[in-house]
Amino acid sequence: MNRFSPAVKSLQALPLVESGAADALRLSEAEIALACASHCGARAHVETAAAMLAKAGLDVASLACGAHWPLGEDASRALSRAGETPSPLHNNCSGKHAGFLCLACASGWETSGYEQAAHPVQRAAKAAIEDVTGAALGEDVCATDGCSIPTYAVPLRGLARGFARLATGAGLASGRAAAARRIFAAVAANPAMVAGEGRFDTEVMRLFGPRVFVKTGAEGVYCAALPELGLGLAVKADDGATRAAQAMIATLIGRFLTLDEDRARVAAFAAPILRNWRGIEVGALRAAGPLAGSLT
Amino acid sequence: MNRFSPAVKSLQALPLVESGAADALRLSEAEIALACASHCGARAHVETAAAMLAKAGLDVASLACGAHWPLGEDASRALSRAGETPSPLHNNCSGKHAGFLCLACASGWETSGYEQAAHPVQRAAKAAIEDVTGAALGEDVCATDGCSIPTYAVPLRGLARGFARLATGAGLASGRAAAARRIFAAVAANPAMVAGEGRFDTEVMRLFGPRVFVKTGAEGVYCAALPELGLGLAVKADDGATRAAQAMIATLIGRFLTLDEDRARVAAFAAPILRNWRGIEVGALRAAGPLAGSLT
Repeated sequence: MNRFSPAVKSLQALPLVESGAADALRLSEAEIALACASHCGARAHVETAAAMLAKAGLDVASLACGAHWPLGEDASRALSRAGETPSPLHNNCSGKHAGFLCLACASGWETSGYEQAAHPVQRAAKAAIEDVTGAALGEDVCATDGCSIPTYAVPLRGLARGFARLATGAGLASGRAAAARRIFAAVAANPAMVAGEGRFDTEVMRLFGPRVFVKTGAEGVYCAALPELGLGLAVKADDGATRAAQAMIATLIGRFLTLDEDRARVAAFAAPILRNWRGIEVGALRAAGPLAGSLT
Repeated sequence: MNRFSPAVKSLQALPLVESGAADALRLSEAEIALACASHCGARAHVETAAAMLAKAGLDVASLACGAHWPLGEDASRALSRAGETPSPLHNNCSGKHAGFLCLACASGWETSGYEQAAHPVQRAAKAAIEDVTGAALGEDVCATDGCSIPTYAVPLRGLARGFARLATGAGLASGRAAAARRIFAAVAANPAMVAGEGRFDTEVMRLFGPRVFVKTGAEGVYCAALPELGLGLAVKADDGATRAAQAMIATLIGRFLTLDEDRARVAAFAAPILRNWRGIEVGALRAAGPLAGSLT
């Protein structure tokens, strides 16, 4: 089963904004962006997640995501060098979970068990995914995510549709469309929150601002939205890994967007040169078949 | 192109032993084992590689493999905590490279450029792979490895044949067969040198001693030799990753070897339970199709 959760974080964040919870707790744009993030666990991410929890009158003890070493190598080593070990704040999903707790708090719901399927927070998130993607999320396509919330297998077409709707508001109730616009604006203004320095999602969104919303998923899934074209993209690499999926989504972005001086920078993502431990060029990675040569 | 190099390190180590170089430099069994290793960069590995170089009158400056952070997470964090950064000794191939330098030194060859295809060290390694696997290693199947030596695409059948020959000496000249026996004995006596604590190769060989020689390759390749059955095994997972290849090779070991109390421990490798960041069971990984149910 594919765990698409990381790709749909922006959909799961809709209730936080449309309910008024984000405004009631005065969440900043950076904090809304972190609620959509699979972050690399750098100090900025950790502090932002902690600040969100504090606004809800909570702290790290309320998080149900579990702890893991930062996804970012630099962040992970910095933690080691300081003689520290990770807390749940370092978990790449901590912003999403902080967002769930903010929603619970502002809605007057019990925070304990917020990660359980029956909790109103998860029911709201599930309903948002179903509405935006058009996919039916029955128990037969439900599993438990790495961060302990329910995760659903969503067809690629549903993911692409969801990203297109999120980008344009088309087919969404006006309140939901307005929330989607705010989420997009928050992410576009805070690309470093969504992933981290040197990470593809951050680098691409820093390059293109509001023209591209791109988000890594799990098991080789990658999604993107191109608002100016009203397009949503979703790919899955059968090998369940990031390297080919990332090259494919970069190639597609380059194929669909009109690029000027940025073309070369997208080409570097779409067809990276592979270097060995001494920096010697040893190979290359690039899209084949129908996508071959898209950026030349 | 598949870089099988890590799987064939034991074949590349044959010239070191059969030429008499290992004995001339008084290499220990642990050092011979490290010459076959894709090690996790722990202190014991680093010190052993340094000791091998010292016996050849050389040091880390002679290594052409390049530096990378230890493959082992614990080893990597220990390095960070100590405020250090990796040297080429931490490279998982440093033992193999130290072995190449020992061969060059004992043979009276120039050490500079030992990693180049035209150097007698690499020509000897290539000839050993060709002889033992029966595969022709032309330039059309040659590329540059992560550690800068030439690497060749070898058919799976050739890898399996090579491992079977290494295990039994069958089809090898007597000097080569004797060297193979010594290499097997060195690895069986020093399983921690070949990979490291907690790593599959080390754990399995610690479990089975001389009954199993198992070695991870790159890009989803895994090989094993079962001397008592005269069998060599080679698998490749199309996803180019370790997780399925490791489950497959564990399943095959369990299928072919007569196991008593060790059956449960092999089953744990062949069908691991997947747990999330809070230790909640979220899935399982196991062989399907013809290999399904092999260990029940």
